[in-house]
Amino acid sequence: MKRIAVLTSGGDAPGMNAAVRAVVRKGVYEGIEVFGINYGFAGLVAGDIRKLTVSDVGEKIYKGGTFLYSARYPEFASEEGQLKGIEQLKKFGIEGLVVIGGDGSYKGALALTKHGYPTIGIPATIDNDIAGTDFCIGFDTAINTVLESIDKIRDTATSHIRTLVIEVMGRDAGDIALWSGIAGGAEQIIIPEKEFDMEEIANTIRIGRERDKKHSIIVVAEGVMKADKFAAELSKYGDFQTRFTVLGHVQRGGSPTARDRVLASVFGAKAVELLMAGKGGLSLGNVENKYVENDLLDTLKNKKHITDPLNLYKLSQEISQG
Amino acid sequence: MKRIAVLTSGGDAPGMNAAVRAVVRKGVYEGIEVFGINYGFAGLVAGDIRKLTVSDVGEKIYKGGTFLYSARYPEFASEEGQLKGIEQLKKFGIEGLVVIGGDGSYKGALALTKHGYPTIGIPATIDNDIAGTDFCIGFDTAINTVLESIDKIRDTATSHIRTLVIEVMGRDAGDIALWSGIAGGAEQIIIPEKEFDMEEIANTIRIGRERDKKHSIIVVAEGVMKADKFAAELSKYGDFQTRFTVLGHVQRGGSPTARDRVLASVFGAKAVELLMAGKGGLSLGNVENKYVENDLLDTLKNKKHITDPLNLYKLSQEISQG
Amino acid sequence: MKRIAVLTSGGDAPGMNAAVRAVVRKGVYEGIEVFGINYGFAGLVAGDIRKLTVSDVGEKIYKGGTFLYSARYPEFASEEGQLKGIEQLKKFGIEGLVVIGGDGSYKGALALTKHGYPTIGIPATIDNDIAGTDFCIGFDTAINTVLESIDKIRDTATSHIRTLVIEVMGRDAGDIALWSGIAGGAEQIIIPEKEFDMEEIANTIRIGRERDKKHSIIVVAEGVMKADKFAAELSKYGDFQTRFTVLGHVQRGGSPTARDRVLASVFGAKAVELLMAGKGGLSLGNVENKYVENDLLDTLKNKKHITDPLNLYKLSQEISQG
Amino acid sequence: MKRIAVLTSGGDAPGMNAAVRAVVRKGVYEGIEVFGINYGFAGLVAGDIRKLTVSDVGEKIYKGGTFLYSARYPEFASEEGQLKGIEQLKKFGIEGLVVIGGDGSYKGALALTKHGYPTIGIPATIDNDIAGTDFCIGFDTAINTVLESIDKIRDTATSHIRTLVIEVMGRDAGDIALWSGIAGGAEQIIIPEKEFDMEEIANTIRIGRERDKKHSIIVVAEGVMKADKFAAELSKYGDFQTRFTVLGHVQRGGSPTARDRVLASVFGAKAVELLMAGKGGLSLGNVENKYVENDLLDTLKNKKHITDPLNLYKLSQEISQG
Repeated sequence: MKRIAVLTSGGDAPGMNAAVRAVVRKGVYEGIEVFGINYGFAGLVAGDIRKLTVSDVGEKIYKGGTFLYSARYPEFASEEGQLKGIEQLKKFGIEGLVVIGGDGSYKGALALTKHGYPTIGIPATIDNDIAGTDFCIGFDTAINTVLESIDKIRDTATSHIRTLVIEVMGRDAGDIALWSGIAGGAEQIIIPEKEFDMEEIANTIRIGRERDKKHSIIVVAEGVMKADKFAAELSKYGDFQTRFTVLGHVQRGGSPTARDRVLASVFGAKAVELLMAGKGGLSLGNVENKYVENDLLDTLKNKKHITDPLNLYKLSQEISQG
Repeated sequence: MKRIAVLTSGGDAPGMNAAVRAVVRKGVYEGIEVFGINYGFAGLVAGDIRKLTVSDVGEKIYKGGTFLYSARYPEFASEEGQLKGIEQLKKFGIEGLVVIGGDGSYKGALALTKHGYPTIGIPATIDNDIAGTDFCIGFDTAINTVLESIDKIRDTATSHIRTLVIEVMGRDAGDIALWSGIAGGAEQIIIPEKEFDMEEIANTIRIGRERDKKHSIIVVAEGVMKADKFAAELSKYGDFQTRFTVLGHVQRGGSPTARDRVLASVFGAKAVELLMAGKGGLSLGNVENKYVENDLLDTLKNKKHITDPLNLYKLSQEISQG
Repeated sequence: MKRIAVLTSGGDAPGMNAAVRAVVRKGVYEGIEVFGINYGFAGLVAGDIRKLTVSDVGEKIYKGGTFLYSARYPEFASEEGQLKGIEQLKKFGIEGLVVIGGDGSYKGALALTKHGYPTIGIPATIDNDIAGTDFCIGFDTAINTVLESIDKIRDTATSHIRTLVIEVMGRDAGDIALWSGIAGGAEQIIIPEKEFDMEEIANTIRIGRERDKKHSIIVVAEGVMKADKFAAELSKYGDFQTRFTVLGHVQRGGSPTARDRVLASVFGAKAVELLMAGKGGLSLGNVENKYVENDLLDTLKNKKHITDPLNLYKLSQEISQG
Repeated sequence: MKRIAVLTSGGDAPGMNAAVRAVVRKGVYEGIEVFGINYGFAGLVAGDIRKLTVSDVGEKIYKGGTFLYSARYPEFASEEGQLKGIEQLKKFGIEGLVVIGGDGSYKGALALTKHGYPTIGIPATIDNDIAGTDFCIGFDTAINTVLESIDKIRDTATSHIRTLVIEVMGRDAGDIALWSGIAGGAEQIIIPEKEFDMEEIANTIRIGRERDKKHSIIVVAEGVMKADKFAAELSKYGDFQTRFTVLGHVQRGGSPTARDRVLASVFGAKAVELLMAGKGGLSLGNVENKYVENDLLDTLKNKKHITDPLNLYKLSQEISQG
């Protein structure tokens, strides 16, 4: 293996740059040329490809987003799109590929492997909803960003005796809501994986008020209900001076945390090692604090279940009612 | 003057606690007893009043919100409400009052002064829209909080070639939008004090795209238009991959910045000095980097015009189009 | 078990408050009275003990340090000290104890268990050097605090072409240096567990300079060498415009990260469950992303080896030379 | 004026990049070509000069340090050095210059003006010790960086009953110590401009301890005494469990605050306006919240006195003893 390439795909996540940096530096360390592909699979097909040196990835480890840019590119699902991409790989003499992203990106990675271009997937998404890994790149940064916001909102909630509904990201997975909610001392955490009862929530707030509790914070994953609707529904059970906040795109950004940078660095280096060993069609994972390789096909088949070996949801119900 | 009291009123702002702390400590230093009134004028009428010691305000300077709580209390506009409040002041032997808050709070402060209870107003609101001062307590913290969010949103905007519309607080005043927009390098800043032309904005974005500009950030003060509506209006002129974010209550919270803590500390101590000198019916201000006293009546009559001696709006138009 | 108590001991660590909060709330949830002991074992002996309610631990989860205070108290190593402590436990009717701290604290916990007072140890130290757990409370916050400092120092190092030596905590364990160094993109990481060669380091910097590298950052664990001495030694091999910084006590403080708050919350609740099940003489751990119980005696016997299942040190040498 | 250049000189300060960006963008807006000179006057003499486009200064506003690099270059004090620099200016057709830095930089700026090359100085130094301006670029960021550290150190000081001595930058000026000390609630602030009495400080700590005060924080400007020596001197008057921390280079770095970015942006644009109006030999200032121009010669003659129109030192003594 003399030449490999790396791209980022799908929604961006803090730590993607640290992973790209590690791919480049590990590659150079091993005597391999590394190329960067801009705009994910769209850039692959368009040939938006350039060699990356050790200096090109200097001053990148601390930056959020992805300096290789990302794009959704449904056309890559077709064989026609894939063959165009392969043409470019041939043109540049690239023998293997690292794809950093989520489920959609893995499909492209699998297709390329089948066409004879070994490809390794690295899981990066703040939603933490990719199978085969306990933690995805970006998740740790996202929960800390949400946590900072909860801490700030608590200041104002406490000052006024209010109920604050905070909508966080998570279409199918409640991980962000669960971790940031526990860490933020939220009274209620509403996630896609669990039923909830609005009347019960209203009762809990009422009881808290009676013993002079100043505020209630409810964290809702966007996949369950939008914050404004949730606040409106809650109001049917009483006036709790409810306000709502949608955290939005802020959650995707920010300088990555220490954990995300380390996770990304290890993933990046491992991906190069696998390619050098002639392997492809694999996705990397951090499972039980160890680094593992998964078959890409399995990863795509499995639905990630909530990362709750810690039973955080139950914990929340026991200790949050302060 | 042997006994004074302090309350916070209206929307909370970071730095209110630092101001309360300074009132208490300066009072004690001068041999005066200081009482804290919970929940603003509502607590005054209800007699929710207690003595504050130097230790009571320990570990408070760095906290957002207000540990005296705040509340809106329209009933204090009536003479009946005011007389009830005065009854409480008499009961506790309180001879002067410091009111920390915004315009609404100043009306109460003026009423009490007329009734013979000298009262000093301290301007605190993140909107920065109180007359008689260049800067209100909370403004500096708010613009830095908004700035952090803009910096994070830029990460993701850059990664995907997007136009991001960010709605910030400011019903009648564009100060938050203007300062955070300049500091955040926003391409467009939309404020109540200035007209804007949606077609022109669309053209500017289009021109930027043509010379490979990766993102556009538009900061909109809530008083002009809600972010979702703005994004929808903009879409009529073309598809700019527009996303929007409403920063919301996060802007009110957070540990106060150095400036806000210093401003609050000076205001708090000055207020005590004025009461000791037998003065009342005044509001404090920081004008041209000096501390001044204004007549409360004048302050209420004057509409604060935008703090733009620096001509920031013009500057923004000249240097933001990158 | 009707009454239990909790104390913090040894050096403070961010997240201790979150652990105390979880002990109290889980206890109350289970119908148990929870008492807080101030100043660790010193307060136990002195009877500085009070009941903690759910409200007492409100607004504590986000605070650094420990609101129960901590103290070193070598006198508790003697049987005399222990018996005095037990007298106090009897007086308050306390039947079990949770001890949050490090190795020294565990010795006290073991002694109490032997005397018939079941005690559970929770590992909390920024150094991350307690056996039986992959991560201790406080470590994640500390590495992120160090990381922020490295990012800031890099700004100024880059502006001037400098070599910056940064001394971080870690007397016997290199965990802080290793994780923050990898995350901060440090060129060199010097830890107690590994030899280093000053001449080689000097050569590496020289080579970097030759290909126009602007700065070098060297992270040194305090247990290896003080920063000033390291800088002086390095200077013997050439003038690298070396500056040094000792991060110091800043590393112990700060609002805990999401991970540390979640880790602390789970540990706190688990400790109560173990006491309810009649167990004692155990320390809690997070091993391979699962929660485990260890025998306290074993924990004390084992020396923690560096948490490096990820082979971070080797990784650093391969990808840091940028 | 068709072509101007900009350089940064002396110690770097957060916000320098924002100033360079504003010079470039305002220049381009006015139809002027702007060149960037690397490494200050050293780069000027060496001809390390390149054209800067609007894109070159994109993504720079939020970065600490200076992307034009800085260097001390005493050789520029000689006429010989100056003439070499002028040769380069001629070569590149540069007609005017903006110099961002401190006192040393101003001397070079004055020399160039005398030689017929109009030069404008922009004050940038975290020490805030340049005459002719209330605030220098970088100061606001530095005091907030110090403040964050004080807040963290307070966590650990409170947990253990300790006296913490914190050494901050400021060789001749106490501004950083004074502002961050007030904002951080420090009990003692030691600055070059004021005498202090160690015995009195010891007594104050002793009195605080007697009424159960948990910690004392003492902020010392480096120009008065090194922290270790201060701690040792204090120990002669009793054992106050004193620890010390030297904040060091961290103070110079970090993403600039909103104020620093706005200040820098206005300064940068103003400098271009002055050059366009044919002016030179001036330094910019922000005095009483207005923008002013000073004669460079006057600026160099005047010694900056402490920015204390607010009487912060007196305030500190009245309200800090909590």
